[in-house]
Amino acid sequence: MHRTHQCGSLTTGHIGETVTLNGWVQTRRDLGGVLFIDLRDRSGIVQVVFNPAYSGEALAIADKVRSEYVLSVSGKVVQRDAETINPNLPTGQIEVQITEIEVLNAAKTPPFFIEDGVEVDESLRLKYRYLDLRRPEMQKTLLLRSKASKVFRDFLDGEGFIEVETPILTKSSPEGARDYLVPSRVHDGEFFALPQSPQQYKQLLMVGGLERYFQIARCFRDEDLRADRQPEFTQVDIETSFLSQDELLGMMEKLVARLFKETVNVDIPLPFQRLTYADAMDKYGSDKPDLRFGLELIQVSDLVASSGVKVFASVVEKGGEVKVLNAKGCGTWSRKEIDDLGPFAARYGAKGLAWIQVKEGEFKGPIVKFFTPEEIEALRERTGAEEGDLLLFSADNKKVVADVLGALRLKIGKQLGLINENEFKFAWVVDFPLLEWDEDEKRYVALHHPFTRPRDEDQHLFDTDPSQILAQAYDIVLNGYEVGGGSMRIYKRDMQEKMFAALGLSPEEAKDKFGHLLDAFEYGTPPHGGIAFGLDRLVMLLAGRTNLRETIAFPKTASATDLLMDAPSPVDASQLDQLHIKLAKKPEDKKVNA
Amino acid sequence: MHRTHQCGSLTTGHIGETVTLNGWVQTRRDLGGVLFIDLRDRSGIVQVVFNPAYSGEALAIADKVRSEYVLSVSGKVVQRDAETINPNLPTGQIEVQITEIEVLNAAKTPPFFIEDGVEVDESLRLKYRYLDLRRPEMQKTLLLRSKASKVFRDFLDGEGFIEVETPILTKSSPEGARDYLVPSRVHDGEFFALPQSPQQYKQLLMVGGLERYFQIARCFRDEDLRADRQPEFTQVDIETSFLSQDELLGMMEKLVARLFKETVNVDIPLPFQRLTYADAMDKYGSDKPDLRFGLELIQVSDLVASSGVKVFASVVEKGGEVKVLNAKGCGTWSRKEIDDLGPFAARYGAKGLAWIQVKEGEFKGPIVKFFTPEEIEALRERTGAEEGDLLLFSADNKKVVADVLGALRLKIGKQLGLINENEFKFAWVVDFPLLEWDEDEKRYVALHHPFTRPRDEDQHLFDTDPSQILAQAYDIVLNGYEVGGGSMRIYKRDMQEKMFAALGLSPEEAKDKFGHLLDAFEYGTPPHGGIAFGLDRLVMLLAGRTNLRETIAFPKTASATDLLMDAPSPVDASQLDQLHIKLAKKPEDKKVNA
Repeated sequence: MHRTHQCGSLTTGHIGETVTLNGWVQTRRDLGGVLFIDLRDRSGIVQVVFNPAYSGEALAIADKVRSEYVLSVSGKVVQRDAETINPNLPTGQIEVQITEIEVLNAAKTPPFFIEDGVEVDESLRLKYRYLDLRRPEMQKTLLLRSKASKVFRDFLDGEGFIEVETPILTKSSPEGARDYLVPSRVHDGEFFALPQSPQQYKQLLMVGGLERYFQIARCFRDEDLRADRQPEFTQVDIETSFLSQDELLGMMEKLVARLFKETVNVDIPLPFQRLTYADAMDKYGSDKPDLRFGLELIQVSDLVASSGVKVFASVVEKGGEVKVLNAKGCGTWSRKEIDDLGPFAARYGAKGLAWIQVKEGEFKGPIVKFFTPEEIEALRERTGAEEGDLLLFSADNKKVVADVLGALRLKIGKQLGLINENEFKFAWVVDFPLLEWDEDEKRYVALHHPFTRPRDEDQHLFDTDPSQILAQAYDIVLNGYEVGGGSMRIYKRDMQEKMFAALGLSPEEAKDKFGHLLDAFEYGTPPHGGIAFGLDRLVMLLAGRTNLRETIAFPKTASATDLLMDAPSPVDASQLDQLHIKLAKKPEDKKVNA
Repeated sequence: MHRTHQCGSLTTGHIGETVTLNGWVQTRRDLGGVLFIDLRDRSGIVQVVFNPAYSGEALAIADKVRSEYVLSVSGKVVQRDAETINPNLPTGQIEVQITEIEVLNAAKTPPFFIEDGVEVDESLRLKYRYLDLRRPEMQKTLLLRSKASKVFRDFLDGEGFIEVETPILTKSSPEGARDYLVPSRVHDGEFFALPQSPQQYKQLLMVGGLERYFQIARCFRDEDLRADRQPEFTQVDIETSFLSQDELLGMMEKLVARLFKETVNVDIPLPFQRLTYADAMDKYGSDKPDLRFGLELIQVSDLVASSGVKVFASVVEKGGEVKVLNAKGCGTWSRKEIDDLGPFAARYGAKGLAWIQVKEGEFKGPIVKFFTPEEIEALRERTGAEEGDLLLFSADNKKVVADVLGALRLKIGKQLGLINENEFKFAWVVDFPLLEWDEDEKRYVALHHPFTRPRDEDQHLFDTDPSQILAQAYDIVLNGYEVGGGSMRIYKRDMQEKMFAALGLSPEEAKDKFGHLLDAFEYGTPPHGGIAFGLDRLVMLLAGRTNLRETIAFPKTASATDLLMDAPSPVDASQLDQLHIKLAKKPEDKKVNA
């Protein structure tokens, strides 16, 4: 029996037609000898009916099927009786009167129901991912992901980009996260590394005159996992020659707008807002601010520097700062509600959390008594504090203040319902610092990566104050997530050497590790720059999910395990021999196949 | 200066326009103080002219540029003088009179010329791949590859396929080629493996109800390399549910036809010829026959079994066979020319190479005297031997005869000019054996892989003669290359268990290694099957190249080395510590960073 239609595609327009369907048994109900089966395929569900009046032997066969059996059925599409119409089902106007059935495969009872919204332990879902994937919301997300990839490709193809595949077996990179390594069988004692990104290859493609490159590229980082990290992840990797930063950003905005229009039919207003890194940190305490609401951080260091609040004065004196979040309308919170913010703030480094409530026209709270009336008035004016407001103070070094108030801003914004969950609010964050000081390593490290180009006007600062150099780097942020980022790249050897030197690499080390790139820059390298979008995260946001694992067909757990395949796993000793490696210690309670 | 046009896009239609171009200096010529530069970008080349009459300071700057400098230039497009028109250049009717120039980057003299057809050592090309990629034929091939991927994706998208990414960090598979392994930092003593194909994942996606899946997937095999193998390669990986083999093959033919039409504008006649494996081996001595010419092998075992040629008689008696290749028109070859075929045949296992020439109406050659006139007549009739023909005999077991005469057929077909190099001749080879006996391992191994479904009518042979089972497997062959292959898959647990048993796996081993798949088959697995196309090889044939490395931006050498990046390479000892592995022996003359 040749399948003629998909279950979910049948409408009243098919009434009278004989159709053959393939699919899975979602539910079966026996009503007085008449059997109703909801048959499911990728397109949806349709009701098929087995009735002694027309089904003949098919009824007896159908009587034996259970949930998740795989069927092929044929029969006539008919209008449902008025009282049995199901308005919740797209196919709810019709049903199919079955005359032929073939059971393609049987099914045991699945360990969980194949439907959305069921509470199932995630590890059970991952172990039986092949069943989990049958759930409509998983299929919808994978379809959305496939569609998103297609939109990326179509847009970039239209703009003259070439998709080029770069190697997965490549070289360990000394700057960046921890590499996954692959021992070489042919080259004793040597290793490939899996790429953290195709960064160097895409730059070399620009040296190679490809001009516009993209790749939907798998990348790998052997990092300690968090909820929103995976050992392997996918980025839409883009590089261009001869474009200015503005030209590139403008093109990428159009790409994003098309992505959202074609996948979820949302119009994204262009151009995106642009924020400097300094402004983002100052106003939102974050380089990936959620701009769906205001609630900006307010600088008050100048107002409190000489106040009676000792901790404020001393912080400012030591070069730190004091900032305020005006939690509008939270002035009525109980002491306990306010105190509960303390442990939350502490998680972000706060040593305490001073506050002032505006009640009955007056500032109230433990610290109020240390301010002069003039200081109170200045604070009221600066913060716009009104009746019923709650001022939250953070006093510390810049980073801690940003972390604490940035986190409080998000928490309170959510709590106050300031966030429109249906809005997609994009912005570019630009003018990142090129370098940041690493206190552990006692050296500068690259904020983006060592190939990022400094702003032209800042290049002289390499010799005087590298920390002040701003980079031609940009992140694209959406609703508090960084969904992409990139930079204009260094394309001259001397500039790249200066950068490596600023990072503490000796000329010999630079040559040893990046010699191929330094050499390449001497053979006519065009000005170039690019960007990479995090596909997993973009799809997560497009699909309205909150966990990256929901966007990946076969994700790994937080401990980097594939529960379905049971990977990683022990391997044969002979395999290790061939790779010229040994286990550092014999795992005692694990099986190694001999 | 904002780039307005691409070099190769300029035509007489642009005459009078002021344009800004970016690109590389291909050549420069100074003719009496007027400087002509061929400027090259991805689109092609255009001549730009610096003349004291209109170039001003730009001339002095241009005078300093050399080959491969990167320029931005602006000027007016003008018609060339009649005598300077270059008919070999698409832009040869016009030139650009430059008034502004910016040198974007300088270039040292490259180690080889940036043009097609230059004889350069391949290892030099690979080391400087970023320069090699500037050559037009490399760019053309990469463009073709990008286009081919797009056609695959567009076609499959139109047919309702979902692109799904499957893991690169997965589990070592016991059946198949050698795996690349990745030590786990988190799971002491355990390893991921890089996938040889997404085979199990794509089948699990079918269990998951995705119905139509594809992926342009990176795959990895740690094999000893040949000219046409790479450690990592790309396949267009496809899997479907509910389709019959005929339906799938029909759809894939349309895909291939569209691929060839849209990339190289060649019409591929449909449907493809179908050959059984048995016929292909019998007639062409190959399961991937080049069908652009005939020259079929001719079975003569019955005619020579009782002849006086002892070796023929004895081979047939031992169950071997004797076959003939009629090399039309080679009957005039000298004894030396014929004898030279001996060493060639020996490479394919031939112990000798008997032959007969037809000269002046008679069979001539050392073995003729051992035949009776009746045998000669029968041979003449069977082989269609005519004046000027050369009959080449191979007598051995089936495999050797096929290998020897299959290779001779290709060699002689080429030598006689029987092959139309512009033809693309496709065929399906079907009905492969399911299993083949491995004399070393003394067990059956899967000819395709252990998930291939036997033909329905052959399934009873598992219990009697597994070697006779034919598989629902198919290869797509083009001009003597296998460019794709696949099968209908086993989808019932009991059948899969029979298959594993036939391969010598105990039930415990089968469960240990493939338990997830066996389990999956019990939860309502649809009938499914698929195919994978070798993208590297397809692009090679589309581009008319003969080496896979020409189709890959950054290929590895035959010893699995990336000469550009210098990978694999030693890694820090601390990296190995974190991965819980040690080198089996200290490499003595290699540096390990401590």
